[in-house]
Amino acid sequence: MKTWIYGKHAVEAASKDPRGLVERVITDEKEIERAVGEDAVHQGVAAVIDTDKLLRDFDSFLAEVKDQRGVALALISEIQDPQNVGAIMRSAAAFGIGGVLIPKDRQAQVTGAVIKVSAGAAFTVPLVAIGNINQTIEKLKDARFWVYGLTGEGEKALRDEDFSENSVFVIGNEAKGIREKALEHCDVRLRIPITDAVESLNASVSAAVAFYEWRSKQ
Amino acid sequence: MKTWIYGKHAVEAASKDPRGLVERVITDEKEIERAVGEDAVHQGVAAVIDTDKLLRDFDSFLAEVKDQRGVALALISEIQDPQNVGAIMRSAAAFGIGGVLIPKDRQAQVTGAVIKVSAGAAFTVPLVAIGNINQTIEKLKDARFWVYGLTGEGEKALRDEDFSENSVFVIGNEAKGIREKALEHCDVRLRIPITDAVESLNASVSAAVAFYEWRSKQ
Repeated sequence: MKTWIYGKHAVEAASKDPRGLVERVITDEKEIERAVGEDAVHQGVAAVIDTDKLLRDFDSFLAEVKDQRGVALALISEIQDPQNVGAIMRSAAAFGIGGVLIPKDRQAQVTGAVIKVSAGAAFTVPLVAIGNINQTIEKLKDARFWVYGLTGEGEKALRDEDFSENSVFVIGNEAKGIREKALEHCDVRLRIPITDAVESLNASVSAAVAFYEWRSKQ
Repeated sequence: MKTWIYGKHAVEAASKDPRGLVERVITDEKEIERAVGEDAVHQGVAAVIDTDKLLRDFDSFLAEVKDQRGVALALISEIQDPQNVGAIMRSAAAFGIGGVLIPKDRQAQVTGAVIKVSAGAAFTVPLVAIGNINQTIEKLKDARFWVYGLTGEGEKALRDEDFSENSVFVIGNEAKGIREKALEHCDVRLRIPITDAVESLNASVSAAVAFYEWRSKQ
């Protein structure tokens, strides 16, 4: 898929990427505004990139990481808000998460807005395209990953898990959370304890807190 | 200050608020779009509220909380993005933070967008208007609060602090962090350890992780 990215940082990072992402760069103010909208903070530069080149194939990725130790991955599931997708990538990179697994369907894809919010992380953290979520979870379990579903109804508090095995954090939809079926496939359902003053944490905040906790225990 | 809020949840929460925030409710589609813009997810309802009624006076607030135990507060400083301000309120409410201190100057104020992102937290977490940040920090220290500056250059890792005293978390600007002068007023500068794959954490993510760590130790 082709997508526009904009802003000096994003375009510079993309153009340095060894995968040859950038197809075209434009610096004409009017042309940029037509492409990315008047509200975008484009700083006078925009580029078309091929996001297919950003996405890795799941099976080859798994083959590569499964024999490593101390690996954690994020699997996002039906996250709608590009702001959340980008924020999860940024936190993933910050806390040393080894890859973000992104379903091809029913999931906000890697757009210019996502890349902007990721603050460069979309280029540094491995992004992995996946198909069916339940099948992906089973493959990860076969590869000896522990799969954690983050949910307000989790039976175990995040703080009580020691993360001694390779880990996967499944992060669900902003309003509905993780689908029941996918939750059943998870090894453990983890809860981040909160007060009853709000219904839930923001999805990208849940992810960041889980990544932080995982990293603190490595 | 008067501000428009929109969406069923937000308007309902505001109208239930005992402080009598709502001055006017509108349900005319066109009038709403003129007021809050075409992109706002307004669900057919918007209202004008008086945000002055949402904000408490600092001195009376401090007098009230200073003799309580197990209190943590957030002090935001020059946060520009309404998305971050709202997200910080939401996480504050979720993790039991006792109040969000908001400078009157050089700081994104409590607008409809902030209230929307806060997911109702703007009405449940005490919001406190403050003047000069350095003077506010000194008053908090006089009231035996420990004041923590969150910064990538902090001398102490967040995980290593035990938070046995009442606490204040100072959260700085998205790009520049906390001003040097304000950092000097803090008792401890706390660092959330990250990799070098990104320059920094998002401001609202830093705040949430700190709130989470604090709450885990209460």
